[in-house]
Amino acid sequence: MIFIDLKRKPEDDGTSEGTGYTQESTLTALDMVPGQLYETIVVTWDESMRGNAAPIGVLCTGERSVTLYLYPGTHTLENILRNRKFTVNVTLDPLIFTEATLGDPGDEMFSSHRGYLHLEGTDAFFTAEVESVKKVVRTDRYGETEIHIVNARTPEIFRGEDFRIVLNRGIYAVIESLINYTRAGFMDPQDLMGRIREMNRIARKVGGPREREAMKRIIRKLESKGFK
Amino acid sequence: MIFIDLKRKPEDDGTSEGTGYTQESTLTALDMVPGQLYETIVVTWDESMRGNAAPIGVLCTGERSVTLYLYPGTHTLENILRNRKFTVNVTLDPLIFTEATLGDPGDEMFSSHRGYLHLEGTDAFFTAEVESVKKVVRTDRYGETEIHIVNARTPEIFRGEDFRIVLNRGIYAVIESLINYTRAGFMDPQDLMGRIREMNRIARKVGGPREREAMKRIIRKLESKGFK
Repeated sequence: MIFIDLKRKPEDDGTSEGTGYTQESTLTALDMVPGQLYETIVVTWDESMRGNAAPIGVLCTGERSVTLYLYPGTHTLENILRNRKFTVNVTLDPLIFTEATLGDPGDEMFSSHRGYLHLEGTDAFFTAEVESVKKVVRTDRYGETEIHIVNARTPEIFRGEDFRIVLNRGIYAVIESLINYTRAGFMDPQDLMGRIREMNRIARKVGGPREREAMKRIIRKLESKGFK
Repeated sequence: MIFIDLKRKPEDDGTSEGTGYTQESTLTALDMVPGQLYETIVVTWDESMRGNAAPIGVLCTGERSVTLYLYPGTHTLENILRNRKFTVNVTLDPLIFTEATLGDPGDEMFSSHRGYLHLEGTDAFFTAEVESVKKVVRTDRYGETEIHIVNARTPEIFRGEDFRIVLNRGIYAVIESLINYTRAGFMDPQDLMGRIREMNRIARKVGGPREREAMKRIIRKLESKGFK
């Protein structure tokens, strides 16, 4: 592990302000586990290095690789197809997530590192280089959509001093289910099971074996009480 | 900060196995902020020291104080009213949350520390001594319920080596809302706004100023696009 102070600013190689970062060799250093999907902010840029930030679920596929599932018509997809590069940024700050989604983030939100833009002051970030892009048609509850599956490797990984976790919705899906479980007596049974099924869908999509097992036990217990 | 090795086991003063804990003087060391509600596991015990674990939201009310809102007819409330003591246990493990809710946890799930039971190997825990209990009738969407408001101070706080965060549903409510926002074009508008309002309710209940501000901006943006 090399400690890198991104505070220094030798043009295009550091951030203007922000915390110090430790360079890590694998995503394991961010507690990211292959098979789990994490809530992050993906930063891309256009041909004039104008930054774009979007909240995107990133699937960890290995110690140094990730996969994104991108919908058409977004700046993120357009920029990634053009540059074949992006960064994945980790934060727990609801306002950063919100501004990245609703807003038109100003240049001051970004820093640059070796030709990559990333979010200034983010808890952790890693650079990503696209290895392959596949177009598929996915049928989900919103109908048919053409999505791009972007596989990328992660050349550089930086962990900030304040890094805690990368958000994964799996544990929340389990907790929501348990809260509903404890209210089973007060709730409409169909409403209850509808919510539990939705949470099961999320846990299976984003979580790991422990989240899936937890949901299995919750559903089995509810079924044993006559819910279905 | 004093480092305490709870591995040693001088009867009733340590855990049998588990990580080392650092004793902290305030809840700030667990990044707990007054006014926010955290998802934890509350451990109580009956007159023969038989442990009970339940997933319970704990409101941080100060650097060394918390408040619980407890429903009637639970072992947790019964035990707390009898002993005026409990522990608050921090974990990110979905199976521990699940077993604490569904199951009848065996004695091996618990360790004892100075007459308090806590979850074996938990990421962090603190002891709590009841200062006051108030009974109120709360009217919510499930009707009228008599709840007990338990105010407690936290004499001892232990942070394990693997501690990351105490779960707060606020950031997840914001992320769920943002995911729904980005799907606004595909969703039924009433369904969309129903979900957003539910997430707003959660963010306001459990989150801090940044979560509330985030929800305000999301709702404002949706309203500006004609959703209501």
